[in-house]
Amino acid sequence: MYVTHLECPKCKSIFNHRKVVQLCQNCAAPLLVRYDLKKIKNKFCKKKLKYRSYNLWRYKEFLPIEDEKNIVSLGEVITPLLKLKNFGSMLGFEQLYLKDEGLNPGGSFKSRGAAVGISKAKELGVKSFAMPTNGNAGAAWAIYGAKAGIEAHIVMPKNAPLITQNECAVVGAKLYLVDGLINDAGKIVAKAIHQYGIMDASTLKEPYRIEGKKTMGLEIVEQFGWKVPDVILYPTGGGVGLIGIYKALLELRKIGIIDTLPRLVAVQAQNCAPIVEACKNKQKESVFWENAKTVAFGITVPKALGDFLVLEAIYKTEGTAVDVSDEEILKYQFLLAKNEGLFICPEGAATVAAAYKLLKNGWIKPKERVVLLNTGSGLKYPDTIRADFLLLKSDNSIKI
Amino acid sequence: MYVTHLECPKCKSIFNHRKVVQLCQNCAAPLLVRYDLKKIKNKFCKKKLKYRSYNLWRYKEFLPIEDEKNIVSLGEVITPLLKLKNFGSMLGFEQLYLKDEGLNPGGSFKSRGAAVGISKAKELGVKSFAMPTNGNAGAAWAIYGAKAGIEAHIVMPKNAPLITQNECAVVGAKLYLVDGLINDAGKIVAKAIHQYGIMDASTLKEPYRIEGKKTMGLEIVEQFGWKVPDVILYPTGGGVGLIGIYKALLELRKIGIIDTLPRLVAVQAQNCAPIVEACKNKQKESVFWENAKTVAFGITVPKALGDFLVLEAIYKTEGTAVDVSDEEILKYQFLLAKNEGLFICPEGAATVAAAYKLLKNGWIKPKERVVLLNTGSGLKYPDTIRADFLLLKSDNSIKI
Repeated sequence: MYVTHLECPKCKSIFNHRKVVQLCQNCAAPLLVRYDLKKIKNKFCKKKLKYRSYNLWRYKEFLPIEDEKNIVSLGEVITPLLKLKNFGSMLGFEQLYLKDEGLNPGGSFKSRGAAVGISKAKELGVKSFAMPTNGNAGAAWAIYGAKAGIEAHIVMPKNAPLITQNECAVVGAKLYLVDGLINDAGKIVAKAIHQYGIMDASTLKEPYRIEGKKTMGLEIVEQFGWKVPDVILYPTGGGVGLIGIYKALLELRKIGIIDTLPRLVAVQAQNCAPIVEACKNKQKESVFWENAKTVAFGITVPKALGDFLVLEAIYKTEGTAVDVSDEEILKYQFLLAKNEGLFICPEGAATVAAAYKLLKNGWIKPKERVVLLNTGSGLKYPDTIRADFLLLKSDNSIKI
Repeated sequence: MYVTHLECPKCKSIFNHRKVVQLCQNCAAPLLVRYDLKKIKNKFCKKKLKYRSYNLWRYKEFLPIEDEKNIVSLGEVITPLLKLKNFGSMLGFEQLYLKDEGLNPGGSFKSRGAAVGISKAKELGVKSFAMPTNGNAGAAWAIYGAKAGIEAHIVMPKNAPLITQNECAVVGAKLYLVDGLINDAGKIVAKAIHQYGIMDASTLKEPYRIEGKKTMGLEIVEQFGWKVPDVILYPTGGGVGLIGIYKALLELRKIGIIDTLPRLVAVQAQNCAPIVEACKNKQKESVFWENAKTVAFGITVPKALGDFLVLEAIYKTEGTAVDVSDEEILKYQFLLAKNEGLFICPEGAATVAAAYKLLKNGWIKPKERVVLLNTGSGLKYPDTIRADFLLLKSDNSIKI
């Protein structure tokens, strides 16, 4: 393992990675895991990956697990990077790709953060944790927690997808529903952490979830033959995925594997777009978004703890932030499904709508290599589909 | 491509594989795809697989696609073979494995049959097909059909899982619900095929679905380092997966990659167990099961067209057939989830219950390598989970 320490990106304080540490004890900012990149540069060999397991654990030099025995796995896979040939050219893209995170265990990208987060928690001797969630993250940490034998306390808005509630239930996690949004769930968790002293697995309040999400960036670069695409669009709630992808890119650049960075785009919903608003005004942080509500439930995050890191990733890569309406989200969810056979989640569909918007206004050029990040399977969002079907009796016929 | 012809397993008639052929034109039995196994033996090299895509298409010598341009892919993966260490030893198994087909595109093993079936249909110039389904197969053929631009007409019992109806709807397939079981849906499809002359994609009425399912067997053998386990348990409705796995094993044996066969076990639900009944009496075919009903909806098949092939696979491998109750299915679905973090479908859970039964009665020995086939993700069956959660107000606390 090549981890050297944990670092606060704001005040640069340093913490011991062999203890359970949550936020920076000086300025309460999220901590980042730092590696000895010189050593990694000497040890890491792209060609050797051929002999490793075909999942995120293949990037072990870039991961914080000390002893492989602590790896908690539910059968992760390298998720496919699909070229959307039909649909891309319909919209005017020459090279439109979709990274389909719906094929992770539990059907969403949240498994990556949970796989690494829970493995590290196990390594550090954690017995119990609590977290607020919009559904998928809680479900992912619950299933990996069950595998590891670590007790999970999950607090979720009552409107979070029902299937994610079921996932928590079936693995025996303690689930609490709250009549409010994720920030309300966060307050309840904060009280419990304070009172019971268990681990806080809230977004960015422990440093290892980012490391799991980072593997999306590593995979994308490997899947493009160790090159970067021109643009990556990411549906942004808490923004950990975007922060993780950016961290992966920086680490790969520092060890000389890549030399340029793709432009990173944060995609939000029109009725919950704090990052878009901050980006417009070139601000370093976002402002709490009142009355947030969107069909893309996973990105209903009125104010993210890591907003400053998301904005930094956007500014430093000459990226941007875009908002799209619920109507656009549902329209592109259907259009993509019809043309490519892919049933993606509304959050993923938001990136499709955003990419088209950026193509039309010239920010994306038709020839550029564009990656849409679909964060989860549409299977988890049955309510986004409305359809009436003909009910037949067994002796009826159909007309074709 | 190494396909030589299509063959009727009953009357041994031979058909041209370069035309759309459905059942045997002499005896109406399902047809099997035959390969030039001598040529495959000369060409196929295990070591070369390292350089191929990490999905079912890596086994191209064993697949019927002539031109790789016709491959219709939604990002298939090699599904994980997970060792159930905790749960296995709890039950008394030393080497219990689960092959998790929930990680396929669309969340079920049906994607394999659809990937190969639709690719071959595209290669043969098919423009439109119809099929009856218990849900997952129809959804899989609908999504791959959408990708290929082939029109899908899907007839499903109205009680089939809602999410599979949604999958058909979102990709724009024509879906019809029927007030009855899959056999009733089958009658409606048969009439439509007769009237409109489109392709019949019903289970085993076209020969290529088996070839897709076969890849489960190829993967299992590769995942065990080109060795076979002792027992494979498979939830059996139409039984195509079991037939496919058996076909893979025979082909691998003929080219000298393996020399023994695992015992194959068909698992059915107590209230729909025609194969179990036939197996008890050593019959070659099953009898239609009246009033079939089980929580494992995917295996509600009162009489399978390929029953004689399933029974042959069981008898020739010294396997068996076992039925389990709905209570056992739901019990083991929960137990596995709690102990391994895996939320599997009720059909998959049936194999868990069956394996335990066979361990207790001595048919499986504790040291044997046992593979459970989980055919799909629990995400597609939210109704199998019952749970009540505490609803909190945003200023409430939780007790840990």
